[in-house]
Amino acid sequence: MHPDQLIKQIEFIKEIDKIKYIQRKTKLFNSDRNENDAEHSWHLAMMAIVLVQHANAPVDLLKVLKMLLIHDIVEIDAGDTFIYDTQKSHDNTAEERIAAERIFGLLPIEQAAEFIAIWEEFEESKTDEAKFARSMDRLEPLLQNVSNNGGTWQEFDVDYSKVYQKKQAIKHGSATIWQYAEQLLHDSVDRGILKKTEI
Amino acid sequence: MHPDQLIKQIEFIKEIDKIKYIQRKTKLFNSDRNENDAEHSWHLAMMAIVLVQHANAPVDLLKVLKMLLIHDIVEIDAGDTFIYDTQKSHDNTAEERIAAERIFGLLPIEQAAEFIAIWEEFEESKTDEAKFARSMDRLEPLLQNVSNNGGTWQEFDVDYSKVYQKKQAIKHGSATIWQYAEQLLHDSVDRGILKKTEI
Repeated sequence: MHPDQLIKQIEFIKEIDKIKYIQRKTKLFNSDRNENDAEHSWHLAMMAIVLVQHANAPVDLLKVLKMLLIHDIVEIDAGDTFIYDTQKSHDNTAEERIAAERIFGLLPIEQAAEFIAIWEEFEESKTDEAKFARSMDRLEPLLQNVSNNGGTWQEFDVDYSKVYQKKQAIKHGSATIWQYAEQLLHDSVDRGILKKTEI
Repeated sequence: MHPDQLIKQIEFIKEIDKIKYIQRKTKLFNSDRNENDAEHSWHLAMMAIVLVQHANAPVDLLKVLKMLLIHDIVEIDAGDTFIYDTQKSHDNTAEERIAAERIFGLLPIEQAAEFIAIWEEFEESKTDEAKFARSMDRLEPLLQNVSNNGGTWQEFDVDYSKVYQKKQAIKHGSATIWQYAEQLLHDSVDRGILKKTEI
């Protein structure tokens, strides 16, 4: 009676509800509550819509939104990895690949392939869309940490040079936003909420 | 130094974080925790990406996503209104309009106008994009209530005829999905999780 495709799609829609339980290390703006992956993905998508004019190259916004909305779905199985974790790589791991195949694999076969390809494109960060999407993913926690008096920088004792290195990904997506972000990092050092170790 | 537009856009991005505190009446799938508006908006956007092939008419998916991602932002000021509330209308209220003007008004003027227009288009439910977006907004809580043994239908004693009436909006977005949804409603009556009063 119902198309077989629709049944598979509904199963996927139910499964991804679990992303709402995946807690990130960063906290909401001016808050003590951790952000979850669904909230984070929504916020990044909104940021991309609002900031797209600042992308270094013209981008296909629909593709950027798809990337940002799905980029953390693999964490349902693989969990969130803290960007400054020194034990575990944040990069596209074997664990995340298995997760992508299981979760996106709930969808009809062609759609599953499309979603896996979009997730891979985001992870590889080579196309203009992936670079701009990545810059959103780096900007949000920066804004959160600044609004939370240092947030995870303070909590996990992360210093300026490490943060600066990770945040440079913003530059590849948007030089304009990077200029703003770089200034925020300097201001954070001046305010004493981001530690700069003299070498 | 930074474009004036970017400063306004960042202020908007910070402000909309508050949507993460707006609790809906419906609960997550198989859960006792209420869903918030950011999680809800993320889920609807994902549903639209996954289900777009079933739309009654070809739709501009980018516009649908923009509608779904922003449609509840006005609730930051106006609050969530329960769809089966008998005291307060769920429709586009004066309160929501003032909220739209304040919150979208944080953006640069042209962008503010664009966002208000998209929000209005969703509220009016006349275009193909708005109808399909609306069908996603009706389908998600239906799936949630079915997975939660009746959920808000049981909690607030809402009966079949009222639910059936509200859910018919799905038909205007997708006849295929409506066929599935209608069956779910009948099954829910059979399972005893949705009360049908004999007339």
